[in-house]
Amino acid sequence: MRTVNAYAAPSATEPLVKTTITRRDLGPNDVEIDIAYAGICHSDIHTVRGEWGPIQYPQVVGHEIVGHVSAVGSDVTKHQVGDRVGVGCMVNSCGECEQCVAGQEQYCLKGNIQTYAGVDPADGSITQGGYSEAVVVNEDFVLRVPESLDIEKVAPLLCAGITTYSPLHHWKVGPGSKVAVVGMGGLGHMAVKIAVALGAEVTVLSQTTSKQEDSLRYGAKAHFATKDPATFEELAQSFELIINTVSAKLDMKAYLGLLKVDGTLVNVGAPSEPLEVPAFALIPRRLSWAGSAIGGIAETQEMLDFCAEHGILPETELISADQINEAYERVLSSDVRYRFVIDAATLA
Amino acid sequence: MRTVNAYAAPSATEPLVKTTITRRDLGPNDVEIDIAYAGICHSDIHTVRGEWGPIQYPQVVGHEIVGHVSAVGSDVTKHQVGDRVGVGCMVNSCGECEQCVAGQEQYCLKGNIQTYAGVDPADGSITQGGYSEAVVVNEDFVLRVPESLDIEKVAPLLCAGITTYSPLHHWKVGPGSKVAVVGMGGLGHMAVKIAVALGAEVTVLSQTTSKQEDSLRYGAKAHFATKDPATFEELAQSFELIINTVSAKLDMKAYLGLLKVDGTLVNVGAPSEPLEVPAFALIPRRLSWAGSAIGGIAETQEMLDFCAEHGILPETELISADQINEAYERVLSSDVRYRFVIDAATLA
Repeated sequence: MRTVNAYAAPSATEPLVKTTITRRDLGPNDVEIDIAYAGICHSDIHTVRGEWGPIQYPQVVGHEIVGHVSAVGSDVTKHQVGDRVGVGCMVNSCGECEQCVAGQEQYCLKGNIQTYAGVDPADGSITQGGYSEAVVVNEDFVLRVPESLDIEKVAPLLCAGITTYSPLHHWKVGPGSKVAVVGMGGLGHMAVKIAVALGAEVTVLSQTTSKQEDSLRYGAKAHFATKDPATFEELAQSFELIINTVSAKLDMKAYLGLLKVDGTLVNVGAPSEPLEVPAFALIPRRLSWAGSAIGGIAETQEMLDFCAEHGILPETELISADQINEAYERVLSSDVRYRFVIDAATLA
Repeated sequence: MRTVNAYAAPSATEPLVKTTITRRDLGPNDVEIDIAYAGICHSDIHTVRGEWGPIQYPQVVGHEIVGHVSAVGSDVTKHQVGDRVGVGCMVNSCGECEQCVAGQEQYCLKGNIQTYAGVDPADGSITQGGYSEAVVVNEDFVLRVPESLDIEKVAPLLCAGITTYSPLHHWKVGPGSKVAVVGMGGLGHMAVKIAVALGAEVTVLSQTTSKQEDSLRYGAKAHFATKDPATFEELAQSFELIINTVSAKLDMKAYLGLLKVDGTLVNVGAPSEPLEVPAFALIPRRLSWAGSAIGGIAETQEMLDFCAEHGILPETELISADQINEAYERVLSSDVRYRFVIDAATLA
């Protein structure tokens, strides 16, 4: 076992504090990663505050992790010491169910093991995330991070990137696809960049026009304010796919009205309250409302390679570990363009 | 113009009464049909009672129509006098939009013209339905009804049949597909028969087990009572597709729990209230909740031919026209197995 510095939540109501945690000894299939950077995801906040259910404390979160391999187990074949690698939202799965076999480990029928606040079936311990100096992960859940992607910015691809890439890919977005992205935040801005790179004609639907310049800079064709009711008239039946990154309760009937026949609205944002949807909003144009969770490991690698090929990176603001609590408040007030990344060197 | 006998609703609150209506002179592309039988659909009741919005009275409903061609316009090429034909839920569409061109007239971007209570763009008149002796319809919206299908029973295929065939077809149900049908009524029993003929393994989800024998007779593999909470545990993550024919407000989270990864729940029943669906019920297995409306004309013909090939007919109870009001009450109390059909000869 190795003891490393980390930032942990002591309880649901206290700020995160600097502490130490232990990382397990390398198993034969394990990779040890010296973490260089870790992104801050809104999920981290929901989790440490117990908003998605009770958790054990202290808890280290962070599932957008990038660093370098510092040691490998005896049977590891996929990674070598010194490799630049990443870890996303899951660190294991059963490997045997039809979903795992199909490369959809995120939908493992036995439940994948989340990078933090999960229960590691090997020893029953609670998994601890990326706000730390190092992590030990089964090699199958370690991604190669192309050298061309700026290591200081790349971490958010491991969650925000794959969470938006996967539905764009699954619903076959390509050249000429008409796509809307609801919400211009950590997930939304990645959805825009990736959809644009896939050749789609992208429209951003944001509460106001304050981020319009960013939308256009990232390649969106248009940016509309959802506070203006005229938006919903002007854009009626315009899109084949809507990626909804917002975790608030939206007027679903209004958003579904923006879909063409056979269109799909995909939620990657997860409001805690149920959404109210009239069946009459779906039936007359054979619409679908769907959900999508991160992506499989092979798909995550594909996304990283795609981003390298197209020069896609998140927009990030680098912080030191002692700024995490302040960053949380700024995430909650939407005061970040568009993702905080923790410099793990500041944990030393 | 021709005057024919019909049964019409004089208002939203009065029983239907015998009356006469006029049918337009044959246009060059029109077919005149002497109606033999007309099915009673729950939509008829919603419509005449103004439950789906205000309508003009008197109104004749009925969109499950079968009969014989009695005259054809000068340019008609698809049908001849004496042909056995049917008319379903729509009698025209723009013919030019991308949906019409794709054979999806039910999703016509200008709105298809419904068989009753629609506005005929030709003359602004309100369309009148099948509870009548004859109807005049553009030849493109007239279906060929195979001679092997019992004419006394076939009418409900024109709505209940295509409404269930279309989503089964669109979501690619085939041999071995795991399909659940929610609600064992006019639509539900057709969904069972058609899904079974497509090779699916079909489970019926009905409030009680009172219709279990019917389910099994129509080829379902199992029938479960949704009043029993154990049903939802036993069938968790069992189905690829759920066809929901129920127009009541269901516990959507519970039903979505029955879907496998990438499964879809399709509403063909349209509750008047919005349904409450937590995004968290969709996201972890990439589920979809969709709606579907009838089917295109080519698809309706395909359905009729498929039913002829597989010997599929609705279960019907034949009534005379003067029993329509009584039949409505029985539909509302689910006291019909499974569709009333009016003998149009009794309108004379």
